[in-house]
Amino acid sequence: MTRPPRGFPVAEFRQRTQAAQVLMAEHGLAALLLTTEPEIRYYTGFLTRFWESPTRPWFVIVPASGDPVAVIPSIGAHLMGQSWISDIRTWAAPDYADDGIGLLVDALTGIVPKDGRIAIADQMESHVRVPLADLRRLEAALSPRALFGDATITRRLRLVKSENEIAKIGYAAAIANRAFDRVPEHMSKGMPLSDVFRRFQMLSLEEGADWVPYLASAAGASGYADVISPATDTALAEGDVLMLDTGLVWDGYFCDFDRNYSVGPPAPEVRSAHACLIDATQAGADMARPGHTIADLFHAMNRVVNPSGDVMEAGRLGHGLGMQLTEWPSIIPQDHTPLVPGMVLTLEPSVTVRPGTILVHEENIVIRETGVEFLSQPQSRDMRVI
Amino acid sequence: MTRPPRGFPVAEFRQRTQAAQVLMAEHGLAALLLTTEPEIRYYTGFLTRFWESPTRPWFVIVPASGDPVAVIPSIGAHLMGQSWISDIRTWAAPDYADDGIGLLVDALTGIVPKDGRIAIADQMESHVRVPLADLRRLEAALSPRALFGDATITRRLRLVKSENEIAKIGYAAAIANRAFDRVPEHMSKGMPLSDVFRRFQMLSLEEGADWVPYLASAAGASGYADVISPATDTALAEGDVLMLDTGLVWDGYFCDFDRNYSVGPPAPEVRSAHACLIDATQAGADMARPGHTIADLFHAMNRVVNPSGDVMEAGRLGHGLGMQLTEWPSIIPQDHTPLVPGMVLTLEPSVTVRPGTILVHEENIVIRETGVEFLSQPQSRDMRVI
Repeated sequence: MTRPPRGFPVAEFRQRTQAAQVLMAEHGLAALLLTTEPEIRYYTGFLTRFWESPTRPWFVIVPASGDPVAVIPSIGAHLMGQSWISDIRTWAAPDYADDGIGLLVDALTGIVPKDGRIAIADQMESHVRVPLADLRRLEAALSPRALFGDATITRRLRLVKSENEIAKIGYAAAIANRAFDRVPEHMSKGMPLSDVFRRFQMLSLEEGADWVPYLASAAGASGYADVISPATDTALAEGDVLMLDTGLVWDGYFCDFDRNYSVGPPAPEVRSAHACLIDATQAGADMARPGHTIADLFHAMNRVVNPSGDVMEAGRLGHGLGMQLTEWPSIIPQDHTPLVPGMVLTLEPSVTVRPGTILVHEENIVIRETGVEFLSQPQSRDMRVI
Repeated sequence: MTRPPRGFPVAEFRQRTQAAQVLMAEHGLAALLLTTEPEIRYYTGFLTRFWESPTRPWFVIVPASGDPVAVIPSIGAHLMGQSWISDIRTWAAPDYADDGIGLLVDALTGIVPKDGRIAIADQMESHVRVPLADLRRLEAALSPRALFGDATITRRLRLVKSENEIAKIGYAAAIANRAFDRVPEHMSKGMPLSDVFRRFQMLSLEEGADWVPYLASAAGASGYADVISPATDTALAEGDVLMLDTGLVWDGYFCDFDRNYSVGPPAPEVRSAHACLIDATQAGADMARPGHTIADLFHAMNRVVNPSGDVMEAGRLGHGLGMQLTEWPSIIPQDHTPLVPGMVLTLEPSVTVRPGTILVHEENIVIRETGVEFLSQPQSRDMRVI
């Protein structure tokens, strides 16, 4: 697979901004106020791991017309200056007396009329990345302008990926495919799970990941109790199922899928559970085309893993994927979002092997005009053995 | 350095909880509501990389007396069940109709009387990790109970680290020391910076990091323009200064320091800039003892890097360190926090080499009764050469 170019053409950021502005006009919004990493990166291209530091707030304003305005700590001025954004206002953060709120209020009141609505993402997967006291200060200072929800504008735009975005996610998935293929050479019985965990991250980097923001790992006889625990120092034992679930990043885009390996030959119950998961994933993939909905994907997979029709407690059977490890929507029966070309999703069925142990399988797909395209390498019903 | 044990004794979580409850009583607070990873982990020990997924909210309540109560997605029940918390209430998240707010309101109204104050962190380094619409819904449902600021209670407790915490940060720093020592064997002229970046993460894992949430890397003649940009594919050239700044994690605790390497012999201006940074760091370390303040640290370092008395635009000369890459306080002239034993800090002076290029040096220290203890290995005035 050829490595795609890094970054995006400026035309793509302009197109995203203009698409947001069309929706803003529909909803009577005078500005979008962005405070989180994926939102700010979506419109500006500002890519840095510095968001790991919780100290400084960052703001970008998308006005009703014209280009976005960045109101950011001076430490980010050089990097933002390399983006397509030309109106960049900075302060020397951290400032204990006023950490950017005054500058932000000046920018917003210069853009938004007194009766204008300022919108901020307020739905699932979002939060306001500002200390609560500063949010309250901002609201008071903007009065009579009020903060409204953003009518899911950014979420709706991010839901459908461009070909450039799909290429990045696909490249990340190809890196993970290669790392997973190398697990049998590197992991074996007797190795502590914490070493497996560390070594898989090294393999991901060796295969080309920029960084590895997410890895979960579990191992146990007949499966595992959950898929979110950190690795323990317990050694892999004969008959264990080893699960590795990675969200690695290339150029700011995630893949997110897992693989299961049997340490020695799998027990019959494990063998059939894994085959069931592959069948469920395929049933989801067969349903994954325009004209169907997210709920259809859920039911197609759930019919295979839960023939009784029950729904597992831990919830969803997949989700959106892109600049974040998990994005809108969730594959649950209540989600009736129509599938459209360009949506990137994970299919993630799980099955109970015995009370207290589960197996989970996950693949990454993109919806195309003609149906599904796998970004991860679909697996066979036979679990791999190490 | 001996590897410390993973986790904490339950007594330590009880002690943290009781210390918070003493402060809550002083401030008339009936409950602390926690929504972010470090806050929840501080009181419960709940450690997972699953926070990378933005979809589900997580809540923990610290009541005025008694043990904390967890109100969390069912996917986290097994892991939280291994902590010292026994009152764990779950819902099947994501739930589009009510993603935990109803369950949280039930828990809070069962704990907090109608005239009671519910407190939430509202200051620098904090945010409320809940969609804004759900925060508003929560406030309405809790009425007449109101949400107040938490009077910096958790921040104050986290500022002073226990010996167990210091051992974890020190162990993370020892891992980074070893990785930095191996840079000259692995990096050389002609290598693209993106490969350096990837390889340093592999070295960090090989030396024992659990994961590498933060790495910044820059290279250029006479220094670099900023310390937050992602690595480009530009090859290291003779005369470049290569900077690697890592925040790697062991058992949930960060180190955070950087190293500079000269590709070939350093230019005279680079040599003297680096020596100046080491002198500034030492001046900070000499001042780092009980009886002095954060502002004293700032001035001690700034006198060396800016003999004119000017303050660099990009702000602070270090910060707190622990469960997060950057924590309270910031080493700025406005911070008059007294230094007390157990505070873990970074000393991070920077100097302008030429207009547009800087050098930054960083070390990690802990304040002891008798003065400073370095957690990272202090460097000599001579920059390392690769």
